[in-house]
Amino acid sequence: MIQPFDDNYFMKKALQEAELAFEKGEIPVGAVIVIGDKVIARGHNLTETLNDVTAHAEMQAITSAANFLGGKYLLNCTLYVTLEPCQMCAGALYWSQISKIVYGARDEERGCINLKTKLHPKTKMKGGVMAEGASQLLKRFFIERRNLN
Amino acid sequence: MIQPFDDNYFMKKALQEAELAFEKGEIPVGAVIVIGDKVIARGHNLTETLNDVTAHAEMQAITSAANFLGGKYLLNCTLYVTLEPCQMCAGALYWSQISKIVYGARDEERGCINLKTKLHPKTKMKGGVMAEGASQLLKRFFIERRNLN
Repeated sequence: MIQPFDDNYFMKKALQEAELAFEKGEIPVGAVIVIGDKVIARGHNLTETLNDVTAHAEMQAITSAANFLGGKYLLNCTLYVTLEPCQMCAGALYWSQISKIVYGARDEERGCINLKTKLHPKTKMKGGVMAEGASQLLKRFFIERRNLN
Repeated sequence: MIQPFDDNYFMKKALQEAELAFEKGEIPVGAVIVIGDKVIARGHNLTETLNDVTAHAEMQAITSAANFLGGKYLLNCTLYVTLEPCQMCAGALYWSQISKIVYGARDEERGCINLKTKLHPKTKMKGGVMAEGASQLLKRFFIERRNLN
């Protein structure tokens, strides 16, 4: 049976968000939040545009999803994000009690796994979904930026 | 010599912010960000009012300070916050490269110390400034809330 709404389907949406960040000269990370088969929030990194270290893709998606739901807890929601969340974003996801986090590429240095950020007991996490697409986009960004300087 | 601009002076400003949160029915936590002798940003917890788990006092103060400075790094800045920062806020402070964090009361369960959130190497942290005032306000809030239910 065809399953159109699988992890790859939603991670592609998150990658589209990452591409929007790339076009704005932002480190290309994108996120969507999904409930059932429906995307209820989108976000991409805007730290340079907004001049704000807190403007990560996930933070904006969390705020936007809560706004959509009319409640601050993201129960039965899944976050798709192209890069493993950092301490700040994982800390925000802890408070949100989100049901599931699906990330693309690992972030060995600044990601929540190696830094052991505590997730909410209700939250499951899965990684490596379309990781190659996410990390290729990041590599392309840093190569282009280096060539500009 | 009289030192009017000491840690207690600025923590009192943060406590005033916490009282504003209290009056709005929010868990009373307040913060200010200071550069030299000048308060450049204020914030208090607004998670209920804004229906947003990311709306902690510190997060709003970080965004506001960057806006004031016209740059996202909070170099030479000190954050005064009435309660030890959580993982999310400490993670945001990591990205901000803030010079110093001064907190009031400890948060043994959800604070960044016991949860071992990584701070930026440039960041110093000091605790226990006017801790009694901060924790009394929190206790009063939870007692009143319990009596309402």
